[in-house]
Amino acid sequence: MAEAQFKAETSTRGEWVRQANRFTERITADGSSGWPAQPDRYRLVVSLACPWAHRSVIVRRLLGLEDALSMGIVDPIRDRRGWRFTLDPQGKDPVTKISFLSQAYLRADLEFRGRCTVPAILDVAEGRVVTNDYPQLTLDLSTEWAKYHRNGAPQLYPEHLRTEIDEINAVVYADVNNGVYRCGFATSQEAYEEAFERLFARLDWLSEHLADRRYLVGDTITEADVRLFTTLVRFDAVYHGHFKCNRQKLAEMPILWAYARDLFQTPGFGDTVDFDHIKRHYYATHDQINPTKIVPVGPDLSGWRTPHGREALGGKPFGTGTPPG
Amino acid sequence: MAEAQFKAETSTRGEWVRQANRFTERITADGSSGWPAQPDRYRLVVSLACPWAHRSVIVRRLLGLEDALSMGIVDPIRDRRGWRFTLDPQGKDPVTKISFLSQAYLRADLEFRGRCTVPAILDVAEGRVVTNDYPQLTLDLSTEWAKYHRNGAPQLYPEHLRTEIDEINAVVYADVNNGVYRCGFATSQEAYEEAFERLFARLDWLSEHLADRRYLVGDTITEADVRLFTTLVRFDAVYHGHFKCNRQKLAEMPILWAYARDLFQTPGFGDTVDFDHIKRHYYATHDQINPTKIVPVGPDLSGWRTPHGREALGGKPFGTGTPPG
Repeated sequence: MAEAQFKAETSTRGEWVRQANRFTERITADGSSGWPAQPDRYRLVVSLACPWAHRSVIVRRLLGLEDALSMGIVDPIRDRRGWRFTLDPQGKDPVTKISFLSQAYLRADLEFRGRCTVPAILDVAEGRVVTNDYPQLTLDLSTEWAKYHRNGAPQLYPEHLRTEIDEINAVVYADVNNGVYRCGFATSQEAYEEAFERLFARLDWLSEHLADRRYLVGDTITEADVRLFTTLVRFDAVYHGHFKCNRQKLAEMPILWAYARDLFQTPGFGDTVDFDHIKRHYYATHDQINPTKIVPVGPDLSGWRTPHGREALGGKPFGTGTPPG
Repeated sequence: MAEAQFKAETSTRGEWVRQANRFTERITADGSSGWPAQPDRYRLVVSLACPWAHRSVIVRRLLGLEDALSMGIVDPIRDRRGWRFTLDPQGKDPVTKISFLSQAYLRADLEFRGRCTVPAILDVAEGRVVTNDYPQLTLDLSTEWAKYHRNGAPQLYPEHLRTEIDEINAVVYADVNNGVYRCGFATSQEAYEEAFERLFARLDWLSEHLADRRYLVGDTITEADVRLFTTLVRFDAVYHGHFKCNRQKLAEMPILWAYARDLFQTPGFGDTVDFDHIKRHYYATHDQINPTKIVPVGPDLSGWRTPHGREALGGKPFGTGTPPG
């Protein structure tokens, strides 16, 4: 990311402090927010590299929202103009006709000077960002978009488990999802080591939590699993080396590794992972930690398809629902 | 290392091309070279971080040359003045009285402009480098210094195995010892990938070679094992992440990992390893690949002391000799 922006998100003691989400409007079932959930009105913009965006890719697919909410995919490599639609013909998103995600941010707020992030949901007609509020965005796909879910869609955020899901999401966010960034973007040894200790203490805690239950909350996949998965699947490919999260590889933490493989092999998870985008994004975008921009050939990824044995713990990934097609 | 020097050792297609050893005089048993092997005349200067120097630390200890050849240890972090004696009182080597290794290089050749490397053997009286020719240096400790070996010193370079040892050393040097540097210091994706393929192809070949024999050549430790060991022991700590040698960790290559642990647990090997110096040197010295200079907390090193099971393959580490005290 650009030097000035990187500095803006770094504390005086070298900690990485992620910018707040700026666009937090919500798309709602009843339209009371001014943004009613409806087909063909919005476009979800993601990077397949980005763990925050990856959540929405998984949830959209699990819920079968592909027809109601179209999706644009940006180039994994951000240059100084930010996320770009260079993978599309003529370098333009075919639906919103923009070349850079920043155009949709500036249409929403001409004064916006922060980092333009994914995921973002754009209003197609206005070509502007409605929300980049990733923690709310996927919950709303589960709840406010329920009318458009496929038959057999799982309950990813069931009411009776919300407190538990919210609690685990909070600690997983602080120590793991954002924790790996706090390791990688720290500019002081002290800030890095503090983030490292918190990260691995939480991974140890999660290993213990998952030792005798198949999923984080309840006995089916929920939003909590989606959020942990998007970090775990990137762990050995980028966080272990590039972000110095290297006490062990995920592949050396048996319970978490089996848990992650179980999800990877579940429809909607592994089939949304693009290791090429992931590796190229991290290694070629963060000049401040990899100035050569060389992308490692490793790791060997063949282990992701190996048996995990977690079926023995019981649980049904989709509950009374069915896997996506 | 300094930018200009780094560029001087980089080809136009982004390959790292190590500078030749400049000081290649030899210390000989009969003194015919002008440099007779004798006690108290020379000083071996090493960095405990450096794999090339580490060879001489191991060989000196295995052969019991500590009394005949004293050893100075430089600070693991090189600054723009190169290797420094900042670990010693007043920042001076107590024997040669120099503060920077470069002083001994310039006393040998005022015109020298290359990288001042370790290991180096200095003539104490003249305060100058006699040799920095690391491939020859350890062989000469085995052969030309034989008169000063301890009782029970092993034969690290026995005559009847020299051809075999030389052959394996040549490929291990090109693809592994220097291969990890060719991965880490490549400045083009193409040069990196070529080095990576050669490195892991050679590690696969070595795994096969070591599957049913305990040591590389013969059934005792030799110079060949010393040279492979100094790269393997650094593999997970620095080469895997910092140099992007990440198809697998050493700990994920079962035969090589057991072989390396066997050596690590053999007197003269593990007891000469300083992971703190190793990690701080690599991560804090190579600005061009780790500009933040943050040193990773990992990896977990506890595995080095676990049972390796290689005794079952037979062989006697010291042959008819004994371990060092």
